[in-house]
Parts: sequence; structure tokens; C-alpha cells
Amino acid sequence: MFRFGVDYYPEHWPRERWEMDARLMQEAGVNTVRLAEFAWSYLEPRPDHFDFEWLDRALEILYAHGIQAILGTPTASPPPWVMAMYPDAYRVLASGQRQTYGNRREYCPTHPGYRERSRIITQAMAEHYANHPAVIGWQIDNEFGDRCYCPICRANFQAWLQEKYGSLDAVNAAWGTIFWSHVYTEWSQIPVPLETGGVPNPGLALDYDRFMSDAYVRFQREQVDILRRTCPNHFITHNFMGFHYDRINYFDLARDLDFVAWDNYPRLAWRRVMDVPPASRAIEHDTMRGLKGKNFWVMEEQSGSGGWQTVGMTPRPGEIRLWTYQAIAHGADAILYFRWRTNRFGTEQYWHGVLDHDGRPRRRYREIQGIGAELQRIGDQLVGAESRPQVAIVLCYDTRFAFQIQPNHPDFSYPGLLASYYNALHRRNVGVDIVSPTADLSRYKAVIAPALYVLGQEAADNLQRYVENGGILLTTARTGVKDETNAVVNMPLPGLLAEVCGVEVDEYDTLPTEVSVPLELTLPNDTTAGEVAHARLWCDVLIPTTAEIVARYRDQYYAGRAAITLNRFGRGQALYVGTVGDAVLHETLIDWLVQAAGVPSALTTPDGVEAVERWKDEQRLLFLLNHANDTRDVILPTSMIDLLTDRTVEGRVTLEPKAVMILRGA
Amino acid sequence: MFRFGVDYYPEHWPRERWEMDARLMQEAGVNTVRLAEFAWSYLEPRPDHFDFEWLDRALEILYAHGIQAILGTPTASPPPWVMAMYPDAYRVLASGQRQTYGNRREYCPTHPGYRERSRIITQAMAEHYANHPAVIGWQIDNEFGDRCYCPICRANFQAWLQEKYGSLDAVNAAWGTIFWSHVYTEWSQIPVPLETGGVPNPGLALDYDRFMSDAYVRFQREQVDILRRTCPNHFITHNFMGFHYDRINYFDLARDLDFVAWDNYPRLAWRRVMDVPPASRAIEHDTMRGLKGKNFWVMEEQSGSGGWQTVGMTPRPGEIRLWTYQAIAHGADAILYFRWRTNRFGTEQYWHGVLDHDGRPRRRYREIQGIGAELQRIGDQLVGAESRPQVAIVLCYDTRFAFQIQPNHPDFSYPGLLASYYNALHRRNVGVDIVSPTADLSRYKAVIAPALYVLGQEAADNLQRYVENGGILLTTARTGVKDETNAVVNMPLPGLLAEVCGVEVDEYDTLPTEVSVPLELTLPNDTTAGEVAHARLWCDVLIPTTAEIVARYRDQYYAGRAAITLNRFGRGQALYVGTVGDAVLHETLIDWLVQAAGVPSALTTPDGVEAVERWKDEQRLLFLLNHANDTRDVILPTSMIDLLTDRTVEGRVTLEPKAVMILRGA
Amino acid sequence: MFRFGVDYYPEHWPRERWEMDARLMQEAGVNTVRLAEFAWSYLEPRPDHFDFEWLDRALEILYAHGIQAILGTPTASPPPWVMAMYPDAYRVLASGQRQTYGNRREYCPTHPGYRERSRIITQAMAEHYANHPAVIGWQIDNEFGDRCYCPICRANFQAWLQEKYGSLDAVNAAWGTIFWSHVYTEWSQIPVPLETGGVPNPGLALDYDRFMSDAYVRFQREQVDILRRTCPNHFITHNFMGFHYDRINYFDLARDLDFVAWDNYPRLAWRRVMDVPPASRAIEHDTMRGLKGKNFWVMEEQSGSGGWQTVGMTPRPGEIRLWTYQAIAHGADAILYFRWRTNRFGTEQYWHGVLDHDGRPRRRYREIQGIGAELQRIGDQLVGAESRPQVAIVLCYDTRFAFQIQPNHPDFSYPGLLASYYNALHRRNVGVDIVSPTADLSRYKAVIAPALYVLGQEAADNLQRYVENGGILLTTARTGVKDETNAVVNMPLPGLLAEVCGVEVDEYDTLPTEVSVPLELTLPNDTTAGEVAHARLWCDVLIPTTAEIVARYRDQYYAGRAAITLNRFGRGQALYVGTVGDAVLHETLIDWLVQAAGVPSALTTPDGVEAVERWKDEQRLLFLLNHANDTRDVILPTSMIDLLTDRTVEGRVTLEPKAVMILRGA
Repeated sequence: MFRFGVDYYPEHWPRERWEMDARLMQEAGVNTVRLAEFAWSYLEPRPDHFDFEWLDRALEILYAHGIQAILGTPTASPPPWVMAMYPDAYRVLASGQRQTYGNRREYCPTHPGYRERSRIITQAMAEHYANHPAVIGWQIDNEFGDRCYCPICRANFQAWLQEKYGSLDAVNAAWGTIFWSHVYTEWSQIPVPLETGGVPNPGLALDYDRFMSDAYVRFQREQVDILRRTCPNHFITHNFMGFHYDRINYFDLARDLDFVAWDNYPRLAWRRVMDVPPASRAIEHDTMRGLKGKNFWVMEEQSGSGGWQTVGMTPRPGEIRLWTYQAIAHGADAILYFRWRTNRFGTEQYWHGVLDHDGRPRRRYREIQGIGAELQRIGDQLVGAESRPQVAIVLCYDTRFAFQIQPNHPDFSYPGLLASYYNALHRRNVGVDIVSPTADLSRYKAVIAPALYVLGQEAADNLQRYVENGGILLTTARTGVKDETNAVVNMPLPGLLAEVCGVEVDEYDTLPTEVSVPLELTLPNDTTAGEVAHARLWCDVLIPTTAEIVARYRDQYYAGRAAITLNRFGRGQALYVGTVGDAVLHETLIDWLVQAAGVPSALTTPDGVEAVERWKDEQRLLFLLNHANDTRDVILPTSMIDLLTDRTVEGRVTLEPKAVMILRGA
Repeated sequence: MFRFGVDYYPEHWPRERWEMDARLMQEAGVNTVRLAEFAWSYLEPRPDHFDFEWLDRALEILYAHGIQAILGTPTASPPPWVMAMYPDAYRVLASGQRQTYGNRREYCPTHPGYRERSRIITQAMAEHYANHPAVIGWQIDNEFGDRCYCPICRANFQAWLQEKYGSLDAVNAAWGTIFWSHVYTEWSQIPVPLETGGVPNPGLALDYDRFMSDAYVRFQREQVDILRRTCPNHFITHNFMGFHYDRINYFDLARDLDFVAWDNYPRLAWRRVMDVPPASRAIEHDTMRGLKGKNFWVMEEQSGSGGWQTVGMTPRPGEIRLWTYQAIAHGADAILYFRWRTNRFGTEQYWHGVLDHDGRPRRRYREIQGIGAELQRIGDQLVGAESRPQVAIVLCYDTRFAFQIQPNHPDFSYPGLLASYYNALHRRNVGVDIVSPTADLSRYKAVIAPALYVLGQEAADNLQRYVENGGILLTTARTGVKDETNAVVNMPLPGLLAEVCGVEVDEYDTLPTEVSVPLELTLPNDTTAGEVAHARLWCDVLIPTTAEIVARYRDQYYAGRAAITLNRFGRGQALYVGTVGDAVLHETLIDWLVQAAGVPSALTTPDGVEAVERWKDEQRLLFLLNHANDTRDVILPTSMIDLLTDRTVEGRVTLEPKAVMILRGA
Repeated sequence: MFRFGVDYYPEHWPRERWEMDARLMQEAGVNTVRLAEFAWSYLEPRPDHFDFEWLDRALEILYAHGIQAILGTPTASPPPWVMAMYPDAYRVLASGQRQTYGNRREYCPTHPGYRERSRIITQAMAEHYANHPAVIGWQIDNEFGDRCYCPICRANFQAWLQEKYGSLDAVNAAWGTIFWSHVYTEWSQIPVPLETGGVPNPGLALDYDRFMSDAYVRFQREQVDILRRTCPNHFITHNFMGFHYDRINYFDLARDLDFVAWDNYPRLAWRRVMDVPPASRAIEHDTMRGLKGKNFWVMEEQSGSGGWQTVGMTPRPGEIRLWTYQAIAHGADAILYFRWRTNRFGTEQYWHGVLDHDGRPRRRYREIQGIGAELQRIGDQLVGAESRPQVAIVLCYDTRFAFQIQPNHPDFSYPGLLASYYNALHRRNVGVDIVSPTADLSRYKAVIAPALYVLGQEAADNLQRYVENGGILLTTARTGVKDETNAVVNMPLPGLLAEVCGVEVDEYDTLPTEVSVPLELTLPNDTTAGEVAHARLWCDVLIPTTAEIVARYRDQYYAGRAAITLNRFGRGQALYVGTVGDAVLHETLIDWLVQAAGVPSALTTPDGVEAVERWKDEQRLLFLLNHANDTRDVILPTSMIDLLTDRTVEGRVTLEPKAVMILRGA
């Protein structure tokens, strides 16, 4: 069954309204809601006094309208009494400022008192709802994130280090603390990387970011353990924040869950642009699918203007539907819209939902009602369908944290570089998996691992094995620079990949952002036809050892020297791109790569039309999504059937603006 | 008698100089000075030890030169001993930082110890000067303002809420604290909206801003009560900071005073522009007159470059005179220049006065001397003259605070929108009153109430009654959005004014700042002739219920739908402008409005020449002020007499740059 | 002997590597290293337990390769145990934030405990190394700087004031504390100028900046005293930060040292520009030479990309050599490159040295090796050579601090104004001394004292005497504005120089940064030929008393009035420039000045080629430095010998990009 629904807060509205809400939901095809993830104040109004009556009543009404529920553990926003009980449970920011009451997520994730209250409310809810027919699963907390730098975290960090390193000598050696005489002689001396401490030791800073990521993983695990024990028939998930969120190692956070869910807001208040670039959303979905290598839920899908203090652009007619099917095309097995009704009170007054503040159904309700009707009809044909990309992009959270600590160039962006390669693939409708550096790569024809900055032996071996066995690897400048302690390696760059790439970095230079260096490419199939690719921001000057040169710089004192090399290694090939390129370069390299690897495109489409494949058993589903504001034509190679209309289409097909087709073989 | 003078600090200069100062003042026509508002250190050098000898001596010398004085209570800047006595009396900023010693206004306005010291020094001064022949009145403190977020204010806020709401249940209901589980179960849990608390609950935040505004009103009232009791023959005022100051409800602050005074600095250090827009000053004066609906004083009028750490542009020749007469044209009954002599010491070293640091009279002294001579001659004909506008603009401080909390759009400015409509009226020389939402509107032919965001029942009834009785109302998008708790209303927008306006907001959209939407206007007298009016920032999509459509959008997905409507209601009309427009739109709408309402212009003048009317009994005075840098011609309809020259003028009259005429019927 | 070497950190690398390092150094011509200035953790691992074994061993290996050492006292970066011992020794920033552990220079310079630990480690090192044959001298701490605002500094400031002023009455009078009632009645009330105190009293703020400068001078003196007593045969220096560093009175800091050393980084990470302006480095060297009026060392010369979190541009081929000889041309007697090998760990991972992280010699090593070979051959002919400029620019740290407190105009820069006049001289290859306001000026033909804002009687007398005795003085707007208490003088501007300049400032105006006022110049030798000089930012309107007018404004209300005047006074002349000019104005004025004063140029060269003179006894050395990226021709007036090639050159000489010649008479 395709789960279709909304995020619903009955506690925000009079009971008299609940029946009407349930009826309107049912009329819109809703079969699932998420409830209660911010209702701690009503669930446990005083310490250890629980009140489930209101939630029971809401579930009863919903269930009577054929609607089931995911319950959220409400720990993302503690009631005042919890924080009054533990004044030292307020999170401390990197600036050293301690949070005060008034928002949400103000808690320190390692605070023992807070963790205890979290276990108590989770246990109470789990026991009460373990066998409720309307309850199908759980969401842990809400959008985990943000680091804490409080004294309790400092002590826990010291303990975490002790566990990891065993001795202070090992810590001092790993971090190179003799630099500037930071040799720690007591565990208690080790600081947290507060901004008031200045630019920190990179080793300490990376370990702190790992510790904080772990803190959330462990906090989540405490709730998972309770729920698994108490509600063995329920699934457990958490609502992640997509590709762009960068403070937690999401591969780790996903491990204990049944599947990943995430919150998709293409039109945020603070991103007021006329058009949403399709690839910017596609990479988010593909990353979320990649975390566990399986389908995911969209736990919050935008259904109105976003915004807290300001109001964003409202979704244009057709956009909600387009975003819904884009999510499904990339692997979503469920869609819940956030939120049912726009709240009249509180910080999120302007985070609009399906209904407006006055509760009346208008345009956005009608659009969602239309989608609901479609999915009631065709949802079964979509749910559980598989994505089967032949290209992987490697995403490394250690690298991501390390670049937060040392960006290397002020305008360098690690996710930006990944996205630039992703965009070049997306433009060709080549499916992509986003994977961790130690993932099994054997199923991919090509692997792109840009700027794999922190590179341990296991990941290096994984990539080397991949190439040896016939894979094509693309990697770039700033790969293999650091070992896992965030120290620069004691060998020529790209360090542990120097042999695979058959190249050594002789020296490197950085450029002012407004200066770029033209490249002379000698790749066999350079199809850029006149458009010159450029190096930007960072220029490695390369000495090939076994590789051949496929691009040279045409400016600066390293004019004529190697910028990109290609190495045959084992049965595979490794392309080393010694710079951060512009879009022309990345498109050129991807052109070469997909041709060399023999990776097919889902379909060739005009700009603005996205084509995505999934497989339901051995039935191929081809999603066509027109993101453009005008009609676009697509040529189909064979006759196909559109699931949405049940009509057969072939040859030249016209897609209206924001239109969607889901095609299968005729 | 027209009060003309300076702000004087004899305590900054050697006694030997005082006689010379008084003589130079007398020669410049000075009859009034403000004294002592920053002299607490000399008036009470130690706790409860008072020294008035120096001030008595200064008053004696001044009085001997025909000069009387307003005394300032010196509480705006406490001596070090006061703050050493109460370390917790330092104000806490929204950032959480506590002020330290070294400037002024560092005090918390609710601190009981500070309030006690304030009463003691006020009582002592009042007793000493109650019957002094040179003393005519009092200024309370100096430029009240800036919010405090300290623990004492937190406790006082909790008490203020208890007084306002009675119970915690009522607070929780009003603010909708179930959102994010903020249900308060003890009064002491209620926080203040520190920045460390994140984006706050809008209800809490608005109540806090009201509480802080009240804190200053109450602090002022304590001094007012002492002075009324002890000096029954003296007037009491405070120096306000004009239209642009937005942290205190100035209608409330004015209530306890005899009249409003304010500080007018057209050329501030941090506003370094070649020309000062005349309307930007006019709206300040009109707002100050509107606070009590009566004439006001300019307690500080710029007489030199402003600046603390940097130095602003110096007033151009003629500007001081022009600003003086502009103030009088808009209702000033007194002008005091700030300050007599530029200080050699202290933070305000570069806030220049009439004399330079070396005490020598130069250009600016000579200009002021000229004005003094004029006002000695004609001041009696100006003082007490009335302004009688037929148009009002509604200014609502609750709305202003609420937009500080939630700007709705990052580039939306509530005072900017008011000013834009004001400018359109000013350009036509139509006089304007700035009034509160509950003011008596019966005397106005047209009322403009833009973005009346927080709208209570009383104000809504007031506006509805006004239209019913034949008035013309213009209101705009973001009107009637919130009730008085800062919750979004549970009805279609514009909420309580939906019936009067005959319209419902079907949905709304916001635009990137650089994007605007052309409008198709169908107002009867649209005279823009080719210039297209545009919607900006915010677009309501309207459904008229009883109104007619007078403008439609020409772009975006709501092209063709209603943007502006006009409704006949009772004996009047209501124009609903569903967007933030550009200047063309506002000028077009004002053209329609003044024609529809039959509001006359003071005179039609070329750009840069301001014409303002006042009535001295039934004698009409027409002020002509040429703000331009070149000569401008004006056509007079009848023969008139210029008070400044006693000459009769008629027909085409030429005004020199910065020239002024004050005309009455011949 | 010319000292040539590197900054070396053997403690960062395994002992097995030390021998290889020493050998590579020796092969590069290194004869000197700086050691140990950040090694406190290894020198004193626990309180009062010293370990010199490792340093002894490193010295032994180096000495065996003919290398001697300067030792740094390691107090710039305390080990964790020191700071754990004194939690209140962390510096407090002006923001009020207290530093935490994790970087360097986190200490408060007046903390008695920290000062004691500093004396103990200094004494221990001094005793151990007093007679070591490899040790030749000491560097105190490292790059002193940054102000502290902690409670201990506050108490010490109060004591410093008591010492300076004797009584609170004197303090109150000096600062004019009656302004805003800041009259201090107890010493303990006097605050430090924290940002939380708002814009401070200028007198207090200037005294605080002097106190903080003194704090470092006194801290340094404690170590100097120990070293002088214990190591009488060693020299003592400190590594300064050049012209641009502005938090310490460097004339004072230099006083106790044998000579000045400084750290020269032309290509910083946060200054990513294609070309380094030659004058921007020349003014740094000249300032460092000026501090004691004698030759200096470059203790850290850039040898690779700079950067902590980001990586700067790498020195282009030839730049390290060019910078080396530019330093020597301006008076450097020694060059040490920072650092030997790029560190694999710690905050400065990306502050690259001669070798890369992997320790292999590459391009930069080879370049430095080449320089080493040259200097082994010709160093003796350079060391100790004298600079003999005939023009001085006056640099006043009191003025500099005062402009930090009150910039006067937001875009005014005091060092920028000095640099603008310096650039005009540098462009003509006229040598310049940078001197203090009370320096002996008798040897200069012209003295330029721009914006000498804080002007005491002694400096004023010095300048007056200089002009009386025939000197030519150029001074500008904002000269003589303040007395030494930072009060504005009680006389017409330019205050104490009004008589020498024969002029009075009638009034002044400031301009928006984008507005400038053209000037009409009537200097005898105005050679600008069509390019119009402009006034910017600040315009004094002048009334000459005895001077003649040499420039008038051509715009604003002061069009036609005097902007620049020239006065004959005694046997000399004083040019008063009543504005901040553009480059055209400064070049025009410098053209006039050098011609009027009869100051010769080292040589006339094309743009980009710097010509600098030094004298070795009576042998003139002419340095030619081509900073351009292409070849440049220079015409030599006589036949000369190039020390670097031993070849005779004459007539037209071609310099390759980045080429250097050191010429002496044939």
C-alpha cells in the first residue's frame, strides 16, 4: 500500500474540529498521518504523569476514517518543566553562548538527565501504543542536529577519547599536540573547539565532530532499543534533512533504523527564486536512498509557503504534484505533506500547510486531493520499486567535517563539488547512487569520488580493489590529503591513491575566485566543441608516474603542465582531476566517463525534463517530469503506457508545464 | 512667546566662560535653554548629597540675560557611584550580553534600586527649583529607549503577565503554547525572548515588547508624579525621537506629558547623502504632532555635523534655517539647537553645536543669529498656530512591534510602507495627521491604514464606523492578519475588515525583491499616463465578495486575478490594496483618493518646494520651503504678505535655494 | 657574516629525521636557525621540571653542520598545564568573551601568575644555554599583540592611571568625565573600554590602549632583564609584525631590544591577489628599520603558501628571491625562512614552508638553495650597509590608537594616508625613513606628517624647530586636533601647528565616499598635466593667516575657498593639505616636495622596477628589483658592476621578470 498523508497536530485545534479534519483528509485520499512528535507537554504534563486520552481520541477518529498513524517520540522539544529541572541541559553553541528557553532542540544530546526523561516518555508511549491498531510505526525525535559544546559534552568527549585512544600519549601523538605546546597531561585539560579557543587543532576538531555525531546516534539508539523491545511489530524511522545537512554522519544515524525518512522543502522562505533546479532536489532524494541503499519515505513534503519570520514563495500550481512524483521516481515509498493545517500560533505560524490558518480547503488542498486520487489508483504499482543506478558518487562525512574545519579555499564547497558532478549526470538522465567510501562498489560501472580528503586505509583499499577489478574511478584534487587523524599524510599526494592514479602532486596553487585557468583537454571524446573548460580555485601541478596526461594548464606559471591524468590500473582506469573545475569541465568529464563505462541514459530529454527509471520486479517504470514553465517534447523510442492516464503513447510526446508521466512497456 | 534657544552644558566649561556664553546667546536671540539633563554627577556627587550651587549660578547669569530654562531630570546617564551601588542594574541586551559602564542609558528601566535613585534626584531637584523664576518646565530623562532582557525584567514580565491574563491557562491559550510543547506550568518558567532562545513564540514576543514599552511609560510616570506634585506651575515633557524610533509605543509615552518634544537631526553621521529628502523630515514632525494631536517642541535641532566616532556632513548654508521653518510649518512652537558649544571631551566630541570646540562664533552661529532675529519679530504670529489636515495615516505600535518579530518578507518595512503613502501625499502638499488606530477619525475625509497587521476589535470597529459614516479608507495586504495576542485570525483575511472591504484573500504569494508584477489598473482617474504600477514583495490573490475589482495582476500564475478592490460600505468606500506597491502605484492611488475625497492641496508646487498650511485663529499661514539647490518658481493664486519680509507678493514668485516664505492673506 | 636560515621545529619530527634536515639545510647555505619558541610543553613538561636533552641534541646536530641558533622564549603558547593552573589568565576580548584553550596567545599579559611562569622558563633556558657555542641570541615570545580587557587588567589599568595622574580629580579633568556624568569617585569604578560599555570616552580609551601597549613592553622587559643578566654575550630581539600592525607602540617595544626582527608574508591566505604591490612591502621594511633607526632581521620570510583553514597562493617562481633582496635593499641583515618543513599537524598545517609535508625538497627548496649560494658569496658586502634617506614620514602610535577609537570618517585610514604619500615617494625611488614625532629630524630635507591627530607640545616643538631651521614640512587635515589626553584642543585647528602652517581651519565638512571635490592647484611645479587632483572624505575650509593659497576647492558650498596652503616659517616651509586627497594629489604634492627640497631619486625606473640605495661604508649599492611579470629596461647613468654576476653593466639594462641586480660603481 502506498502511504499517503499529512503531518497532523490535533492538539493545536479544538476537539470539535477533529471530525471535520479526518473527513477532509479521507476525501483527499489520506491513509496515514504522523502525530505527536511535538506534544510532550500534553503527553506528560507533569513529571511522570501521562495523559494519552486526547491522543487516543484523535487516533480513534482518524482510524474511523481509514487513517493510520506514525507516532513521533516528542523529545525534539521539551516542555518548560523538563528544562527547569535541568538548567545545565541547555545546549551551548560554538560561540560559547548557552541556549535559553523558547524554541526547540535546545537540549544537550549527552545530558544524562535529559536522556533519562527521553527514555521515560518513550517507554510510556511505547507501552501505551504497542498494540494499538491505528499505530504502524515510530519516528524518533525530529530532525536531529546541531552540535553542543557544554561542560557535560566536554567531559563526555574526554571519556569518548579515552575509549578511542586508550592513553593521553596516543591522543597527543594523533593530534600532534607538540605544535604550539598543546601537550595534554591530564584528560580534563582537553578542551572542546569553542570559537573562543581560536582556530583549533584539526585532529581535535575532527574528533569532536565525530563525537557529536555519535552523541545523536547513541541518543537515538536508546529510544530505538526501547521501541524494538516494547513494540516489536512497529517500524522505526527518523526524519532526516537530506543531502545538504552536514552535521551528523547520516550513514551512522541510518544504521539502527528500518528505513530512512526525510523532509523535502524545495521552496524555503530563505531561498526565494523563481525556479527550483530539478537536480537540486534529485540529489537530496538519491542521498537519502543511499543511506541504507533502499527506498525511503518523505515524512514532510512541502505543501505551502515555508517560513518562520518571513513567508516564502508559495508552490506554483502543479509543483506539489511534480515534487511528489519526483520523490517517488527517486525511491519514495510514502509521502506525507507538512502540515495539515497552517498553525495560528507559535514560531511556525508561517510554515504553511495544506489548509490555511482558517481551516478552509483551497487550491493546495484541491491539488493534493487530486494526487491522492491518483495514488489510490496506481500506488500499488509504484511502492517498493527499485532504483538500479550504474554510477555511484562517494559521500564521506569525515571529509565533510574536515572541510568544515579547514575549507582549504574560502569558496570551495565539498557538497558543491559533488553536486556539480551530480548535475552533469542528472542532465544526461543517468541514475546515481550516493554511497559511503567503504560501500560495496562492485555493482557500479563508474565511481566518482571527488575530493576524498580524509582517506583511511579501508576506503583506499576499497577504491583500489574497485579499479583493479575493472571499475572506472574519477577522483580530484584534495583527495588522500589527510589520514583519519586529520593529519596531512607523510607521502606525496594523492597519498594512498597515488599508485592507483599513477600520479604525484608536485605542487599546488590556489586562485582568486574571479580568476580561472583555461585547460587544454586531450580526452578522446571531448565533445565540448569550442567551449573551453577551466580550472578554478585549486590547481594541482601533476607529475604522472604511470598515468597519461589528458589535460594541461594554459596559464599561470604552470602553463603546459599536467592538470588531469588518466591511469590504467589492474583491469580498470583512474582519472585524477587536479583541480576544481567549472561546469564545462565536469560535463566534459562525465561525457567521457559514461561513454567509457558504457552507462546508459534513461532517456535523452530537453532541458527541464527529468527522466528517471525504477524497476517494479522486472517491469521498468520510466518517470518523465517536466520542471519547465512551458511545454516540452520528448521522443519515446517505443510505444508505452502512461500509468496516470492508462493511455498508450509513442513517438513525440508533449508534456505540459509541470506535467508528469509514468510509463511502462506497452 | 516663541521659545528659541539652545541646549547648554555650563558644567562642561569653566565658570569664567559662562558670562560670555550668555552674552553670545542673548545676541543670537536666545530666550530659552535646556540644562542639566546629563549632570547627575555634579547635582548629587555622592548618595543623598546634593549640590545645586553651580546650577543656581548658571541660571542666575542666564536669567540676567533674559534667558529661562527647562531642566532635565538627569536619569539618562547615572554617575559611576549609582551603577557601583547596583551591579545588576545594567541593562541586558537581546543577545544576552550585559552592558558595562562607559556610555549612557545602560540602566534597566524596571530595576527597583535605580528607580529609587531616580525618584530621589527628581524630588531633590523639584524641591529646589519649584519656584525659581528662571525655570519654566522639565524634560524627563533623555530619549527613552532600548529594551532590557535581564532577570529583573523577566520577573517583572511574569508579574505583568499575571496582571494582564490572571492565570497561566489564559497565557498558554493566548500564546498557543502547545505548539512545540511550550506549555508553562509555573510563572517562573516564562522566559524573555533572548536571541539565545531562537525565533520566539510571536505571542510571547509581542507581549514582551509591550511590557518593555510600558516599563518606560511607568518609569516616566514616577518622575511625572513627583514633578506634578512639587512643581505645579511647570510644564513637563520628554524628548522623543520621531517617526523612525520604534521601540516604545509613543502614543502611550506621550499620554502623561503636557506636550511632546523631539530631537531632529536631518544630517546624521551615518546618513551621509548630498540632499535630505524633505518628506523624510516632514513625516517625523507630523508623527510627533500626532502623538497628542497638538503642537510640539523641537528640543534638539541639528546645528552642526553629527557624529560620535565619525563626523557627518555639516549643514549646508541655509539648511539650519530651512529645517527650523519646516519644523514650525509642521507644528513646532519652540526650537532649541543642540548644542550650544561643541564639546571638547566625551563620547560626543564630534556632535557639533552652534559654536566649535574653541568657542568662537563662526558661520553656524551667524546663521542662527539671523533666525533668532526673525523669530523675535514674527514668532508671536506663529506660536500656537494649528495644523488642520483632512487626511490621516494610521500608525500602530502593536503592528510595528509584531513586524519586528515577523517581518513577513525580509525587505518589507512597515514604516517604509507608511512613508511611501505619506510621500505621495506630501508631494501634492496635502497635510497629514499621523494617528493611532483608535483615534477619532470623524474629522478626516480620507484615512490610510496600510498593513494594519495586529487589529483588535476596537480598532476594527473604529474603522468600520468611519467608513459607514462616509469616510474613505485605504488599507492593504497584511491588514487584519493578527488578533491582539499576535495569533493569526481564524477567518479569511483581511479578518475583521473583510466585510468593510468586501473582499477575501484567496491565497498569497511573496516575490523575490528583484521581481515585480505589473498591474492593470481600472481606477476611474488613473492619471499615470503610461507609467505602469507594479506589485512588489507580497501579492494577495483576491476574491471580491461585494467589492469591485480595480486592479489585476498581469504576471505570475495569478495573472488576471484581482489585486486591488474597491467596496462601497455604508456611506463610505474602502479600497483594499492587496500588495506592497511601488511609488507609481502609491501615487496613483493617492491621486484617486484625494480626488474622490475632495481633499485640497495647500498649493501646487514644483519638485523640491514644500507648501504647508497652518491656521493662527482663522488666519491661514502658508509656508513655502525650497529644499532644492537651485531657484524654483511658484504661482500664487492671490496676493499675499510674506511675514519674513513684510512684503506683498503675488503671481509668479521665485524662491532662492533653501529659501522660506511665510505667507498670509494680504 | 650574513645570517641566512630557517625557522625550524625539530620537536615536530622524529629524531631519525634531524640529521637529514641538517644536511639539506647545509646544502641550501643555511647558517642560522630559530628554535624552540613554541616548545614550552617539551622544555617544561610539568611545573618546574625541565627537559633540555632533546634541544641539546638538535643543537648538536645542527652545529655539526655549521648552523647556529636563536632560541625563542616559548611564552607565546603556554602548555595546558599552565592555563589549568591559572583559569583567570585567559585573555578577555573587547567583546567581553574570555578566550578558551586551543590556539596561542590566549594569555593576559598582566596576569601575575603567567608572568611568574614566564620568568621561570626564561631563567631556566637562559641558564642552560648561556654558554652554548651554537646559541647566538634570543627572540622574546612571538608576535606580541592583542589587547586584554579582563578584571586583572582593569585593576592594573587603575594602578597605571594612579601612577600617571596621581589623583582621581586629575583623571576626571583629563577625560572630561562630567560629560554624561562619568565622574569617578573611587579608582575601582574606572572601567575598561569593553564593547558592552558602548562608544567610550576618548580619553579613557586612548589611555587604555597606551596601558595595553605598555603591558607588553613591561612583559617583554622582564624577560630581557633575565637574559641580559644571564646571557650577556647574546643578542636579544623580538619578531615584530611590520607597518600594518597597530596595537602596540612599536617604538616603545623596540627600545629594550638590540635590534628589531620581523615577519614578512607578502602572499597571505586572506590576501589572494595576482600581484603583490612592491611599495606595500617596502613600507613594512622601512618602518621596521625606523623603529630603532638601524638595520633589522627578517625572522620569518614567506617560503610557501600561507594559511590556517584555507591555503593562499603559492609564491610564484622567483618571488622568494625577489622578496629576499627587497628586504636586504631596505636594511635586512639576516633572512630566515618560515618554516623549514610544512607541519603535518596543528592549526598551521597549511602555513607552508621550504619543504612540503612529506619532507621532500622541491621547487621552493631549490630556489632558496640558489639564494643561499649567492649570499654565501656576496653576503659580506651587504651586511651592515646603511640606508640614508633624506625624507621622513612621521608615524605616531598615539594618533593611530586615537583613530581606532574615532575614525573621523568611516573610510578614512591613517595608515592608508601614510601609505598613499609613501607610495608617491616609492614610485620615484626616493628613500624614506619612518620616524616617531619626536625623532631628530635635522638630517631630513623633507618631513611628511599626515594627520598628526594627537599632538603634544614636545612633538609640536620638534616640528616647529625643524621648519624654523629650514626644513620642508607637509602636514594635512586632522593634524593638531587633539592634545595628549585625546581632548579636542581649545584653539583653532591645526592647533599647535597653526602658526607654523600660517593657517586656520574655518570649518570642515565630510563627504560621502563616492563624492570627491576637484581642486584647482596653483603650486609652481604642478606637472599633472590634465589629470585633476581631488579632495576626498574630509574638507577643511581654510583661512590663511600668513600662508599663501596653493589649492582651492572647485565644488560644494566652499567652492573657491582655500584647500591647501604653503607657509614660509623661519628658514623653512610648511605645506598644509586640508583634505584627504586622491593618488593624483599626493603624487603632485610629492613632485613639488622633492623638487623644492632637492631630494634625489635613486634612479628613474619604469613602473614595477624598484630602485633602492644602501651604503656600505662609502660604497653605494644600488638594488634594482623587477617586480613586474615581464622584462623591463632601465637606463644606468654610469658603468656599474653587478655583485650577483660580477659583470659590468652600463646604459640600457634589461631585467627579466622578478630579476634582481645589486650594482656598485665600476
